[in-house]
Amino acid sequence: MKNSNVSRRDFVKLSMVGAGALALGAVNAQAAVNAKDVKFDEEWDVVIVGSGFAGLAAGITAAEKGNKVLILEKMGRVGGNSVINGGIFAVPNSDKQKAEGIKDSNELFIKDCLKAGRGLNHVDLIDTIATRAQDAYKLTLKCGAKYIDKVTHAGGHSVPRSLQTANGSGSGIVQPMVEHFKNLQGCELRQRAKFDEFVLGEDGGVDGVIIREDYKFDPKSQKDDAENTTGTKKVIKAKKGVVLAAGGFCRDVFFRQVQDPSILPSTDSTNHPGATAGAMKEAFRIGATPVQLSWIQFGPWACPDEKGFGVGSMFNVNGSFRYGISVDPRTGKRYMNELADRRTRSQAMFKVIDAKADIYPINFCDSEGVKNMVIPEHYTKPLESGVLKKFETLDELAAAYKIPAAELKKTVERYNSFVKSGKDEDFGKPMDKTTTNGVDISKPPFYAMRGTPKLHHTMGGIDINTKAQVISLQTEMPIPRLFAAGEITGGVHGASRLGSVAIADCLTFGMIAGENIG
Amino acid sequence: MKNSNVSRRDFVKLSMVGAGALALGAVNAQAAVNAKDVKFDEEWDVVIVGSGFAGLAAGITAAEKGNKVLILEKMGRVGGNSVINGGIFAVPNSDKQKAEGIKDSNELFIKDCLKAGRGLNHVDLIDTIATRAQDAYKLTLKCGAKYIDKVTHAGGHSVPRSLQTANGSGSGIVQPMVEHFKNLQGCELRQRAKFDEFVLGEDGGVDGVIIREDYKFDPKSQKDDAENTTGTKKVIKAKKGVVLAAGGFCRDVFFRQVQDPSILPSTDSTNHPGATAGAMKEAFRIGATPVQLSWIQFGPWACPDEKGFGVGSMFNVNGSFRYGISVDPRTGKRYMNELADRRTRSQAMFKVIDAKADIYPINFCDSEGVKNMVIPEHYTKPLESGVLKKFETLDELAAAYKIPAAELKKTVERYNSFVKSGKDEDFGKPMDKTTTNGVDISKPPFYAMRGTPKLHHTMGGIDINTKAQVISLQTEMPIPRLFAAGEITGGVHGASRLGSVAIADCLTFGMIAGENIG
Repeated sequence: MKNSNVSRRDFVKLSMVGAGALALGAVNAQAAVNAKDVKFDEEWDVVIVGSGFAGLAAGITAAEKGNKVLILEKMGRVGGNSVINGGIFAVPNSDKQKAEGIKDSNELFIKDCLKAGRGLNHVDLIDTIATRAQDAYKLTLKCGAKYIDKVTHAGGHSVPRSLQTANGSGSGIVQPMVEHFKNLQGCELRQRAKFDEFVLGEDGGVDGVIIREDYKFDPKSQKDDAENTTGTKKVIKAKKGVVLAAGGFCRDVFFRQVQDPSILPSTDSTNHPGATAGAMKEAFRIGATPVQLSWIQFGPWACPDEKGFGVGSMFNVNGSFRYGISVDPRTGKRYMNELADRRTRSQAMFKVIDAKADIYPINFCDSEGVKNMVIPEHYTKPLESGVLKKFETLDELAAAYKIPAAELKKTVERYNSFVKSGKDEDFGKPMDKTTTNGVDISKPPFYAMRGTPKLHHTMGGIDINTKAQVISLQTEMPIPRLFAAGEITGGVHGASRLGSVAIADCLTFGMIAGENIG
Repeated sequence: MKNSNVSRRDFVKLSMVGAGALALGAVNAQAAVNAKDVKFDEEWDVVIVGSGFAGLAAGITAAEKGNKVLILEKMGRVGGNSVINGGIFAVPNSDKQKAEGIKDSNELFIKDCLKAGRGLNHVDLIDTIATRAQDAYKLTLKCGAKYIDKVTHAGGHSVPRSLQTANGSGSGIVQPMVEHFKNLQGCELRQRAKFDEFVLGEDGGVDGVIIREDYKFDPKSQKDDAENTTGTKKVIKAKKGVVLAAGGFCRDVFFRQVQDPSILPSTDSTNHPGATAGAMKEAFRIGATPVQLSWIQFGPWACPDEKGFGVGSMFNVNGSFRYGISVDPRTGKRYMNELADRRTRSQAMFKVIDAKADIYPINFCDSEGVKNMVIPEHYTKPLESGVLKKFETLDELAAAYKIPAAELKKTVERYNSFVKSGKDEDFGKPMDKTTTNGVDISKPPFYAMRGTPKLHHTMGGIDINTKAQVISLQTEMPIPRLFAAGEITGGVHGASRLGSVAIADCLTFGMIAGENIG
């Protein structure tokens, strides 16, 4: 372990089942709970842990087959990280692409993912997304999700294949799905309901879950899963199985640091505070196969002048990185392809950043750039909050961030020549029309923001097959009646996830879990 | 999962405990076995799983404190990978270094490891090795291990700090330790004894193990841990605890491919056939924390013309890479620093290799080079086996491997000029006297071998603290009475292990486990 100053845990885990299982007082609750040793308080066909994209897609798909579905959400708020992202959804081989004359294929999507993922991706899973994402997209349309008409060209993708929600946020998908789910007969979405443990059947498969109701997540604790004892225990039967859709662990300080000790406890994340590894850890405890846990992704488009994902991230994703540039304030020069994959960009930015000296890259574009942003809120909101600033001249911009003005102007001139020639000779940023729309940096005012990578996505997690079944470490076979989808799984993205493939991953495998359960 | 064509497992796991635990017939044996449900067949103070460097160091240290120690070895042969390596042992801050005037420090050792490990190393663990490796070295001396007098400068290390066994193999350490252990009162090393499962106590800690005696490892099976049912079950009490020293998983086709799908089932490994993840998986099942599992190292010095570690590897480690060069046969040119860290070298070699066209890098040195090799067997053995070839002229060497002769001679000339100037202007190979001893490539005959990386070390594994205690995923605290040491643990080496640090890691943490148990 990295940090040997772990404080002692001196209480009894509330969720432990006394009779027939381990004696109370155990510090390590290794022995799994058997169905024959418990009395079930409730009975459902399908229980889903997590109410984000993956959980909702699984819940709706399973319910529409006639199952009684219970979705558990530990937080007071529904939707996890799925409601606090930009709502960009990669749909390879989509009808929308065809309508715009964009040629795409499973092979091209796989190639793009493998390049970003450093060849570590589980190819059968990416292939499944390429084949089924269009179905998942249709599922969201059926629920009432709305998208911008034009297909977007997201960073690291060879062709435009990403769809942007009309409200510029993942909430544009989550909210209609929640409404749709709640209207389904005999289904329930229960908030502040924390999954604690599995209940196992005689065949070693999953028969149910032990949860706590009226649980209150403690955002101040760095180990809420281990130490928070709030809530009232309930034992719930899941006749046809359980879907784990509880997300990743960017906010799990212990677990993320074990996997990557270079990440400090103080490092900020774009994730909601409940993004911990509790459910994932319980899956490992019943034999789920851990995969590629040490690959933790930074989102390179966040802002150091606000907490979390904030309102600034989408300005960089859809504005400055696409229609503008990022410079090192000490030199006034560019230092990266602003649309490279996230890992490449984050590593480049960390070389520029000197947190002690409060030095961060400056990302900016011009007024034509913000006009090209399809969601105006992506620059109006950060302007209102103050993290995005407006300057009438490049000299003013340079002065505000202590950038050598002459160098900055030379950099802008050079970049503008690349826009004109269609080729970035310095860093290879794509300069085709679908990416930059021919926008250079020349029309004041100029819009600038300080940039920093923040922890955004944990690529590793639980191993699944193409049916979203969880694979046992011991048998190398599916654990009966246990499914998983979304960020809690590993292998899809390999070393680094491409932007807009998270929503594709979560919705597609959530839907597939719902199709296969029961 | 990468490969969806997993064959069905249709038998009952022999090691399962029927009464009081899960019903027989379960495909997934998730529920851990509780001590109150079993009858112990034997009773020991300490049980150790694995008889390599780590297991032996733990066994001897624990036994000399007065414990009755049982070491379990699943294979017919003692010593695992520890007897089939070059026997180079990094001992930072050693008396030997001081005697030779070599300045070393914990900081320098940590810096070297972090550079190779891409910053992912658990610094507290490397620091512990730097502080205690000298004690582990003394332990081996006490057992009768013999070393070459001179300190060796191994690849990736800033200073000479590695000690070479006198017989040029890890067996030079293992054999005397085995003899020493066997002579200790009330201790036993039991071969063909396979660890299957833990037995847990009331506090959730480890009370014992379930094993099979007269087990026969099946080298033809790709999933021996899951499918081999040979042997007779025995339940063994470990009053003071268990040390896991069962090594890494380079030969576990399923598990290594889940972690890194770019590794093919057919990819060769330097490891002994029994290097599977069985014991590690059982540890995860009782809550051990998995760490950095997707970092799997290739040894860049193996030979494609023999299986496994073979007799050729040490020619490259101690001969061609140090006193000679490696060239691309198509161009006759060098393509890497022959003494860079293993990951860097392997990646460079894979760019040269075209297995379909049977093209591999050619590694060679001259007669002065082999004379400088401290262990003559490192070139005489591969000469005898035929994987190393002798040529009277560079023209003959070029002709044998279809290298453009003129280019090859130019490359040698250029390299020789670097030896003279003391600076490799092309790839930055260290040219100081302690590395090359001023040897260039000029004195026939020339000794050449085809080279390839083979899977060598799995950096990831079980999380431990500086006392070699296994850390629980659920509690973030030590699992009572469970220790681990050596390649089965993760975090020490981060993304890539430096050569000669495996022996340091295994012996140091094995010794520490033995000190802390009981």
